[in-house]
Amino acid sequence: MIGLKRPKIVILGAGYGGIMTAVRLQKQAGANEAEIILVNKHNYHYQTTWLHEPAAGTLHHDRTRILIKDVINENKITFIQDTVKEIKHEDKKVVLEHDELDYDYLVIALGFEPETFGIKGLKENAFSIRSVDSVRKIREHIEYEFALYNNDKEKKQERITFIVGGAGFTGIEFVGELADRIPELCNEYDIDRSEVRIINVEAAPTVLPGFDSDLVDYAQNILERKGVEFKLGTMIKECTEDGVILSKDEETEEIKSNTVVWTGGVRGNSIVENSGFETMRGRIKVEKDLRAPGFKDVFVVGDCALLIDEENDRPYPPTAQIAIQQSYTCATNLLRLVRGNTEDGLGHFKPDLKGTVASLGEGEAIGTVGNKKLYGTTASAMKKIIDNRYLFLLGGPGLVLKKGKLKLF
Amino acid sequence: MIGLKRPKIVILGAGYGGIMTAVRLQKQAGANEAEIILVNKHNYHYQTTWLHEPAAGTLHHDRTRILIKDVINENKITFIQDTVKEIKHEDKKVVLEHDELDYDYLVIALGFEPETFGIKGLKENAFSIRSVDSVRKIREHIEYEFALYNNDKEKKQERITFIVGGAGFTGIEFVGELADRIPELCNEYDIDRSEVRIINVEAAPTVLPGFDSDLVDYAQNILERKGVEFKLGTMIKECTEDGVILSKDEETEEIKSNTVVWTGGVRGNSIVENSGFETMRGRIKVEKDLRAPGFKDVFVVGDCALLIDEENDRPYPPTAQIAIQQSYTCATNLLRLVRGNTEDGLGHFKPDLKGTVASLGEGEAIGTVGNKKLYGTTASAMKKIIDNRYLFLLGGPGLVLKKGKLKLF
Repeated sequence: MIGLKRPKIVILGAGYGGIMTAVRLQKQAGANEAEIILVNKHNYHYQTTWLHEPAAGTLHHDRTRILIKDVINENKITFIQDTVKEIKHEDKKVVLEHDELDYDYLVIALGFEPETFGIKGLKENAFSIRSVDSVRKIREHIEYEFALYNNDKEKKQERITFIVGGAGFTGIEFVGELADRIPELCNEYDIDRSEVRIINVEAAPTVLPGFDSDLVDYAQNILERKGVEFKLGTMIKECTEDGVILSKDEETEEIKSNTVVWTGGVRGNSIVENSGFETMRGRIKVEKDLRAPGFKDVFVVGDCALLIDEENDRPYPPTAQIAIQQSYTCATNLLRLVRGNTEDGLGHFKPDLKGTVASLGEGEAIGTVGNKKLYGTTASAMKKIIDNRYLFLLGGPGLVLKKGKLKLF
Repeated sequence: MIGLKRPKIVILGAGYGGIMTAVRLQKQAGANEAEIILVNKHNYHYQTTWLHEPAAGTLHHDRTRILIKDVINENKITFIQDTVKEIKHEDKKVVLEHDELDYDYLVIALGFEPETFGIKGLKENAFSIRSVDSVRKIREHIEYEFALYNNDKEKKQERITFIVGGAGFTGIEFVGELADRIPELCNEYDIDRSEVRIINVEAAPTVLPGFDSDLVDYAQNILERKGVEFKLGTMIKECTEDGVILSKDEETEEIKSNTVVWTGGVRGNSIVENSGFETMRGRIKVEKDLRAPGFKDVFVVGDCALLIDEENDRPYPPTAQIAIQQSYTCATNLLRLVRGNTEDGLGHFKPDLKGTVASLGEGEAIGTVGNKKLYGTTASAMKKIIDNRYLFLLGGPGLVLKKGKLKLF
């Protein structure tokens, strides 16, 4: 019977790590080497790193998503649109909402969830930027608040006060877009721009904690000029139905707002810990070959994988860049296993950090590439190049033309 | 002192009747004959008869509004942006939110309010199509419900069930537009069109009560083909936070909906009755010269004026057509008074009904012009001609080019 039944590889999730693992396998595997199944909740992949734009309404969400059938070859990969409920690793099965799958090899690429650090009311009352559905909701919520404002007999400041929790990457990129969008909304709904507040709250003493201080200063300056207020060294103590309660230096302040967007932290998908894997904030501390400790047949890529940077003994941040790089190692290792080509063991993953760029709205950004600091239009152009390069890796030049950010300057 | 102080004409409201009275006076009055003041809540006039379109989201609301300063000559007319609170006719004064005005002649052109006929909960829980603010709210509410739908773990049918109360002119025109808009929203928010319901509820046994039965059948047929469900001979007993309770033939039915739009009736602005005028549903039964009975100095035009059709002893419906025609009589009569040219009394108003056209969404309409019935694209084109003709009367060819509906076929 050997050789008749192909080994079955099941990939859970079509985010950066999952879909790129599928695309790599499709390129490298022969048609009869393995049965490859990709499971995803939606029939599309989306660009998580772009979601701050449709959340603010500055880019249409269709620009951030790609139909899975447009990048996978259905002769080589079976796509199942379903929601993962549980991984039964002892039975080598995955329970889906409408089905159950067995596997020989599993790739967990289930992405992130917001981490609220136990802050009261945040889960119930704050929005988060995590999916196409969630950002369409934010965009429409904001527009609805603007539309309601002039219908109230007594004007409600909370309708046009926007609180963003967290001044990390997503928080900063989101307030940059929101600051661009607000004047358009003011024009659309006959509201004076000076009435609207955008408040960014960050527990650390600066925005973009961990970034170079020149870049941090530049970013804060640009955003303040666009009308963003910063409350740094400030904790969100509680998020209520009416807004937030902030705390700084033992003083508390309440700010009323109907729109609180939490960008202050992420964790791995809770399906992973609920399935009995050992996790830290939902993330499995993977082996160097990206397998879950103690499992020969389970790989983890992307935001569900915890990886320690040996230089500073701290975890690498969960980024698209790392997820994409992991997919290359993961696909290669899967093929070695499938081919029984394991005499040298499996390949080790080592991130090759090429740099980071954070956008600050239209035409403005900051970042580092190698040791070089980038500002303004240069950084903004680099951001678009990075975005386009990913589309190229995923779907070739056709996808860049279709979904890319081509107005570079 | 005679001749030094010009008589002061104050026009309340810049809807069809008010702004056209101002424009007529501006054309006919010499610069020193009268001081003319126009008071309006907003700095724009809007086309009430077009509001079903921005309410559904098929036309931008800016297309339905015109800045007042673009049609009045500020050398001849003083525009005050303020909200009318009360008319003190004994003191010949008008109380505004931020000011008080005295007058020699007053024109009440304060428009309509929804009439809910005492139906429980309608005022609190239903939307109405009455102003730019109110229709932006409807449009954004609908979009927000679509955006929320896929974020709910358990899908809520009430988010995508739309109830329109009333199958008169506004109700029919609104469901026509909504039926055009829904497929776009389904596409935008990944929802199957067949999940969405548009339900039009009418107490009368047919749609468009009073209209020719061929036209009624045509309209209902077109709208049903677009996916509108009709519940005719059916009363809204109550509108709750959760939807409506309907009643037909002593049976009741509850339909859950987060969006109930009431178009079932209008009445005059309640400021009129609150100021001590005798009214029927907020409308003053005017004399033939359009003055309020017992008042030599108060004219009433538009939806606050009640006018009986002597042919059938029933009130004329409150339409834009009649309001516009009244403004001509009102302006002429004001000038006769100002000029002391009243030996023959004042001119009498007689409506000259040229016909009516109701749109059924893009490219479809029904109507009558004279004794001729119009259907389909012919009626739709006629509707646009009527709309453009009004813009021509208001602001000349420039305004037709700027705000007109010029894609006739």
